[in-house]
Amino acid sequence: MMKSFINYRFVLHTLGVTLIFESLFMLLGIPVAAFYGETQGYAVMFESFLVTGIIGVLLSGLYNRKAMHEAKKQESFLIVSLSWLFISLLGTLPYQISGGIPRFVDAFFESVSGFTTTGSSILSDIEALPKYLLFWRALTHWIGGMGIIVLVIAIMPYFKVAGTHLMIAEGSIGGVERLSPRLIETAKRLWFIYIVLTILEIIWLTVLGMDLFDSVCHSFATIATGGFGTKNDSIISYSPAIQYVITLFMFLSGMNFALHYFGFKGKLKQVFQNDEFRAYFWIVIISSLLLTVIILGYYSNDVEMAFRQSIFQVVSIMTCTGFASADYLLWPHNAPGIIFFLMFVGACVGSTGGGIKISRYVIIFRRIRQSFRRIANPACIYTIKYNGKPVEMSIVRSIMTFALIYIGTFTVGTFLMVASGLDFATSSSSIITTLGGIGPGLGLVGPVFNFGGLPVFDKFYLAFNMILGRLEIITVLTIFTPSFYRY
Amino acid sequence: MMKSFINYRFVLHTLGVTLIFESLFMLLGIPVAAFYGETQGYAVMFESFLVTGIIGVLLSGLYNRKAMHEAKKQESFLIVSLSWLFISLLGTLPYQISGGIPRFVDAFFESVSGFTTTGSSILSDIEALPKYLLFWRALTHWIGGMGIIVLVIAIMPYFKVAGTHLMIAEGSIGGVERLSPRLIETAKRLWFIYIVLTILEIIWLTVLGMDLFDSVCHSFATIATGGFGTKNDSIISYSPAIQYVITLFMFLSGMNFALHYFGFKGKLKQVFQNDEFRAYFWIVIISSLLLTVIILGYYSNDVEMAFRQSIFQVVSIMTCTGFASADYLLWPHNAPGIIFFLMFVGACVGSTGGGIKISRYVIIFRRIRQSFRRIANPACIYTIKYNGKPVEMSIVRSIMTFALIYIGTFTVGTFLMVASGLDFATSSSSIITTLGGIGPGLGLVGPVFNFGGLPVFDKFYLAFNMILGRLEIITVLTIFTPSFYRY
Repeated sequence: MMKSFINYRFVLHTLGVTLIFESLFMLLGIPVAAFYGETQGYAVMFESFLVTGIIGVLLSGLYNRKAMHEAKKQESFLIVSLSWLFISLLGTLPYQISGGIPRFVDAFFESVSGFTTTGSSILSDIEALPKYLLFWRALTHWIGGMGIIVLVIAIMPYFKVAGTHLMIAEGSIGGVERLSPRLIETAKRLWFIYIVLTILEIIWLTVLGMDLFDSVCHSFATIATGGFGTKNDSIISYSPAIQYVITLFMFLSGMNFALHYFGFKGKLKQVFQNDEFRAYFWIVIISSLLLTVIILGYYSNDVEMAFRQSIFQVVSIMTCTGFASADYLLWPHNAPGIIFFLMFVGACVGSTGGGIKISRYVIIFRRIRQSFRRIANPACIYTIKYNGKPVEMSIVRSIMTFALIYIGTFTVGTFLMVASGLDFATSSSSIITTLGGIGPGLGLVGPVFNFGGLPVFDKFYLAFNMILGRLEIITVLTIFTPSFYRY
Repeated sequence: MMKSFINYRFVLHTLGVTLIFESLFMLLGIPVAAFYGETQGYAVMFESFLVTGIIGVLLSGLYNRKAMHEAKKQESFLIVSLSWLFISLLGTLPYQISGGIPRFVDAFFESVSGFTTTGSSILSDIEALPKYLLFWRALTHWIGGMGIIVLVIAIMPYFKVAGTHLMIAEGSIGGVERLSPRLIETAKRLWFIYIVLTILEIIWLTVLGMDLFDSVCHSFATIATGGFGTKNDSIISYSPAIQYVITLFMFLSGMNFALHYFGFKGKLKQVFQNDEFRAYFWIVIISSLLLTVIILGYYSNDVEMAFRQSIFQVVSIMTCTGFASADYLLWPHNAPGIIFFLMFVGACVGSTGGGIKISRYVIIFRRIRQSFRRIANPACIYTIKYNGKPVEMSIVRSIMTFALIYIGTFTVGTFLMVASGLDFATSSSSIITTLGGIGPGLGLVGPVFNFGGLPVFDKFYLAFNMILGRLEIITVLTIFTPSFYRY
């Protein structure tokens, strides 16, 4: 009998280890519940831990870790897609056992939105949830931001053999120039930077007077570019200083993490000469200034206020965080349009943010410029350069293909939402906001509304869309193609 | 002194010849005016002829036709872009001299919309125009549909030297497999098919009881995939038989004209085995059946009626004609969404229709499928085939680049329209409908509304957008790049 080239036992084993990691994170909810005297929380988080942990242990027992082999591409795609589906499914347990989110579809939407760092919510009254659930909600962001598989690889030494394809499939090191020749070292350094940024933000927010609990939750949501807060009005009621600090950390989280590493090492030149960083920086500045001018009248010509609201919203949308410091739908008519376009931009490659990503736009833009130059002067050779080095045409082709797949996914999704009965602004913005992992949209899903009122089909489709977007589409879609299972 | 590599005298000479051709077409308005006793029309059309003709003769005198050389790429782009701008500018003369369209911006919009076969109108009361102006309006479609430069090349033997790049830049033979090794012969055969189709439709419509004048105007607008009619309610009040015939001719005009040539020659196999034709055929059928189901209730379960309205609108939008046999904005909520998506599809390469065009979608779709297959099985070689032949990767890359440029142009345009104060549905649909040369959009520019109420900036921008779309963007945009004027 011919043996299948996908080792399903290995796939399920890795899934199991991922779930064990998730179950351990669930235990963190117990001290939070204890601190706030929410006695119901003990049982909820412990039962969630038990169910998730037992499933994890059972699955991980299907494969002998000593037989560990390098994960094939197909295995990696399956592992990553299944892991993200199952951590989301089991991540609903705290919401479901506690009754905090009674309907399964809503709990699933919230859980997927957490892990994928989208930050779209079905909750209309966030503050009604107990603290330990709010903490779990923010924690799902933090787990998903850097990627749980990267964490597994960083911590479990025997996974180093399996690694490269797995990390690529999860998208967490896409575009991060290897920070170390050893994969496991790269994974560790990424998590190190991630933790340092989180701690720095917690300290700064606490110093500025934010409650420790809120500081932790908001920092988890910022560094992961998630967007789940602890207040019904997101960041609107916090002080200007806090809004600026959150803007800064959102901006940092939207950068390629390799640049943070260079920054820590004092190699600032490498940061400021990076093509993507420069484009990112200038798009933020120009869009913010443009918006400031547009909404100046709305804020009674208070320049500081208008600038703060502009840059907060621009950075929040571009980095795909999705916090709101103002309801941008109330801004004069053309401002929401600018917000909508920024949703398509996305953050930098190698960050925790989503979207098509800026470096891809840079390369596509240079490709278009090249094609115009070639038309005029076919005899000249124009190479496409990125960070001073020529880019191979096969890479340019892959990037263009990705952009077209992204646009195609957006189009099909919008079509399905329109067909399900939503208006056009709600349809298109709900798709781009979930695909990019942003959070709020336009129309019925604006920054002060929520996704709770959408039809059940739409909620499931949008949740699927979030996983699609988080794993950069191809990882997930490829497992639905027939050729995937062929030799 | 270094001589410029663009021979501007040659550019202006060709522009002049084009204008002389236009002026001769203007003379055709005089017998129409005479037949309907519209005595004002004599002077209007004759003065228009004189002004256009004199400018044409003066410009054409700048260059000695015996020195004719093969047009360089740059010269071709300049000639074609300038010709389309100037035939549109001088095409406003009949509207302006007669006072039929008093404001210049409106006359320019209407003229550009005519020549580019867009069919968007600023007129609220079409039937108030005299017959000779309605005739001129339909005639601009017919001139623009096949392309006035192709006509110049077909008729003026001394232009055969200059030809290839010129015809490519005008987009009229893009994708038409050369119908003859001799360019001039290809141009002649294209115009022959064009004229035969027009005459067939005129005869058929007249037999079905349409007035000869209306038959001629509607046939001009159909075969050119234009959309200007002679009635305020477009095709809504005509009989079902007439609606079916117009649907058929719109469908035929959306096909690659090379296939008509094969069809005339009895090579039906080449028609039905053509990848693009098959995709075109099935998109029309499937979309029409889907729409029939959706709007069945709206038409009181009258299957014939619902099917006729569906297929008419689907074919009209896909071929970028823009006639309406019903106000699709009144259809149940999700139907206009389907119409909007069809606006992005477009017709076949080598047809008179616009849009991204179906063969490009076919190749992009196959490229995406290839990229998925390669991910799963990198060792296998998957070539992209089109009509049974492998497609070179450089061509695939150009097609993807074109699609991204198209989407970029759409995005920038929508952004400008939103910034000018229009709502999102009106903005995005007015851009795609003018870029694709379709005609009606959604929102304020729906099939029973018109573009008359838009701000002046928007009208000019949309007119520019029509020329961009008609000349497939690159021809026009490239003359704005600095490298265009460098060696």
